[in-house]
Amino acid sequence: MTDLKQKILAAVGDDLKAIEQALAENLNPYFDLVSQVAGHILFAGGKRLRPLLMVLGARLCGYSGNHTARFSTIFEYLHAATLLHDDLIDGADMRRGRQVANQLWDNPTAVLTGDFLLARGLSIAADTGLCEVIQTIARITENMSQGEIRQLEKKGDITLGEDDYLDVIRCKTAVLFEGACRTGALIAGGKPATVQALTDYGYHLGLAFQMADDLLDYTQEITSLGKHAGADLREGKLTLPLIHALSRATETDRQSMVAIFENRNFTGAEFASLVEMLKRHGGIAYTEAQAAAHIQKAKTALLPFEDSPTREILMDIADYARVRKT
Amino acid sequence: MTDLKQKILAAVGDDLKAIEQALAENLNPYFDLVSQVAGHILFAGGKRLRPLLMVLGARLCGYSGNHTARFSTIFEYLHAATLLHDDLIDGADMRRGRQVANQLWDNPTAVLTGDFLLARGLSIAADTGLCEVIQTIARITENMSQGEIRQLEKKGDITLGEDDYLDVIRCKTAVLFEGACRTGALIAGGKPATVQALTDYGYHLGLAFQMADDLLDYTQEITSLGKHAGADLREGKLTLPLIHALSRATETDRQSMVAIFENRNFTGAEFASLVEMLKRHGGIAYTEAQAAAHIQKAKTALLPFEDSPTREILMDIADYARVRKT
Repeated sequence: MTDLKQKILAAVGDDLKAIEQALAENLNPYFDLVSQVAGHILFAGGKRLRPLLMVLGARLCGYSGNHTARFSTIFEYLHAATLLHDDLIDGADMRRGRQVANQLWDNPTAVLTGDFLLARGLSIAADTGLCEVIQTIARITENMSQGEIRQLEKKGDITLGEDDYLDVIRCKTAVLFEGACRTGALIAGGKPATVQALTDYGYHLGLAFQMADDLLDYTQEITSLGKHAGADLREGKLTLPLIHALSRATETDRQSMVAIFENRNFTGAEFASLVEMLKRHGGIAYTEAQAAAHIQKAKTALLPFEDSPTREILMDIADYARVRKT
Repeated sequence: MTDLKQKILAAVGDDLKAIEQALAENLNPYFDLVSQVAGHILFAGGKRLRPLLMVLGARLCGYSGNHTARFSTIFEYLHAATLLHDDLIDGADMRRGRQVANQLWDNPTAVLTGDFLLARGLSIAADTGLCEVIQTIARITENMSQGEIRQLEKKGDITLGEDDYLDVIRCKTAVLFEGACRTGALIAGGKPATVQALTDYGYHLGLAFQMADDLLDYTQEITSLGKHAGADLREGKLTLPLIHALSRATETDRQSMVAIFENRNFTGAEFASLVEMLKRHGGIAYTEAQAAAHIQKAKTALLPFEDSPTREILMDIADYARVRKT
């Protein structure tokens, strides 16, 4: 474990415990099947980054009540709901080192549990009694579903450009990070400028987080959570490293990369040669630079806040999002 | 067409036109695929009863603005979203006389379009700017998803009782009717007692509507929309006519009915003999009486409102819900 990760975990240990407890408590009164299926995805080693961002965002804005853990579960439920439907859509086998729910149970159960977690998230949002929070959650669900559809439509499309990519990762990742931070500020009764600052932090953090994730697909042999390198590529997902490399490559290399992308059953050697070309044409470096720029913007958004341990953790989380290996 | 149906359609013709237009307009700016798949289910001859209830509810409470058609689409989108996921879950082939979306396209597309329609509904709810409306919609989605899960869990369960049945149809049908009527009252700025009266109307109407639907599964050879008699039974859905008959039958008849229910591939003759037993043991008459009682309660809830053409249509709709043949 890196020093930075250790530092963050030490600082937020109690928050993570409270979040775990709230995640379980909110599901408890529901039927056996839902609790099992939802639990399968919820309690499989998720980082709880989204709820944590809400809790820390609220604290940064001076919130001192006892409700953040419960409200923060919204963002983990929405995330888990998307994963359940995603796995069915992608035809994936594994998620977080476990067999996916739609195989362990079946498609109907995975669809309905996803629907339930989304609805549960909305219902907890309604419990806040804050119109702006509920509106934020409604917009998140709309954006996320648009992002998923766009990703499905663009699957295997080699002409995807950087703008299309940014649009997809904004919808599928950044809006949830942004919404979690924004909700924290809203629950704390933050002023408009404060709400906007945390919204900006979450947005840029989310973009960088997804770029880092997309880099891992090319740079890790096997992630610690059991996802194989090239898994996204095999599903026909074109991400920034390849998009950028394609735009800069010689015609010969371009054709080689396209051929590997279009052959979903590429060998390990072909994948290695693709990664070599990505590096040579700056795809990796460019994506790293873009992620770093968004991290910088995220941290800059926090500058108006007074220096505090909470601000420091949020800064650390931003740094960590970019260098994480899982 | 019955006289009652003709009278209702004549009275709400302009409203239905406005609703159709709003349904199409709200989808227009979205991607081709979504519009196609959503359109496939949305524009296949739905009755638009749910949006119509919202429009009429608002009018009954004195609303005179121009936004009801747009807001009313929430209830058709939520309904269509459920149907899209339902068809996948039930493994049905046909819906409203057309092939189901998950077969015409595929499961991923049907799941994502359902998610999108739900999210679109939530987002339009957020546009009302009325916290209570958004909360109402959030609760509807939670209840509907719970109802679906319970139905899936109870599939093929011969021990299902009348209370379980009521719980399922409350979640899967009544909450949406109730929510549509309630939202109409809220948008019109109705007082709490008025909001409650319309909520009650919608709730009882919804229960009666679903009971009538469940009766049709036993009493219609083939509905005009191409659904075969016994389709629900074949999917393992135990509904009130059979639940009641089972509770009253002789042991011999009980065993015959159970055997037919448990053999999903029953013949036409077996189905006919089941229907005969349902009738003999009062399952049909009891369900009709329960539906009639809920219609009576729905109409009673409207009595505090001054007599008006709008109140009359709502009364007519209640009567029609019970006698409809499609």
